[in-house]
Amino acid sequence: MRHIISVLVRNHPGVLSHVVGLFTRRSYNIESLAAGVTEHPEITRITIVVTGDEHVLDQVMKQVNKLVDVLKVGDLKYRQAITRELAIITVKAGPKSRHEVIEIANVFGAKVVDMSEDTITLELSGTERALQNMVRLLNPFSIEEMARTGTIALSMKSSEQ
Amino acid sequence: MRHIISVLVRNHPGVLSHVVGLFTRRSYNIESLAAGVTEHPEITRITIVVTGDEHVLDQVMKQVNKLVDVLKVGDLKYRQAITRELAIITVKAGPKSRHEVIEIANVFGAKVVDMSEDTITLELSGTERALQNMVRLLNPFSIEEMARTGTIALSMKSSEQ
Repeated sequence: MRHIISVLVRNHPGVLSHVVGLFTRRSYNIESLAAGVTEHPEITRITIVVTGDEHVLDQVMKQVNKLVDVLKVGDLKYRQAITRELAIITVKAGPKSRHEVIEIANVFGAKVVDMSEDTITLELSGTERALQNMVRLLNPFSIEEMARTGTIALSMKSSEQ
Repeated sequence: MRHIISVLVRNHPGVLSHVVGLFTRRSYNIESLAAGVTEHPEITRITIVVTGDEHVLDQVMKQVNKLVDVLKVGDLKYRQAITRELAIITVKAGPKSRHEVIEIANVFGAKVVDMSEDTITLELSGTERALQNMVRLLNPFSIEEMARTGTIALSMKSSEQ
């Protein structure tokens, strides 16, 4: 099963490496990882998407929890979480095919952030599925480069009530 | 100085941990990290924002380059790169202050992705500065939770021509 693990850590060098190490030491496959500061600049939130055995995951989470600089570890359920990711994608598109790419971008609510004679660069944030769908439609134009953030997640407040 | 390091790796367990380890072993401070699949599903792009000594960074990048599963390491210059990040932010706001938060969201082009009786959750993608500016304006409402992806970057094609 797929899990979104959210880890709050103090911004000390090495903590990210330790957390990641605990997952990969058990051959746990990390699908994506995002680490960025939170509302408190001295605290970083690491969001890790992993797939694998529940029992092993429980053990790994306990080990992560024991690290000195780890403040909190949680397993966010997909159904009760708001999950988003971001991609910037450079597509081959010259004057003739440009409008088709822009049409796709508009449908998905993506922004055009750069354009050259033979490329267009788009920015899209949304659910993983929305990103995958747009990428599939862009594939025929040949994707030159793509950078993706990995998933971030927060608990959904409206479902708690 | 601040650098955006882009590392293309094969999706093998352990590679993320090795790459991160090489940075933190030299006490290099990782400000943010984003790892997500690229246009080739078997290849992941790791984007790391670091600050520190250029000479040490050169050495670290050479070491990263020697790892078996690392395909490419690059130092993207801020001026010639498109950089974006994503945040989801839950703000305390009931019926009375809701419209103020939504007004701020509209100005920055953020989307409202969830709402409860006393909270609003916003999604914003943009430059680091845009995110910081919106966060500053939201601070008076009390930020309950925030998740940020860290920066992703691609080279700016329009500046190459």
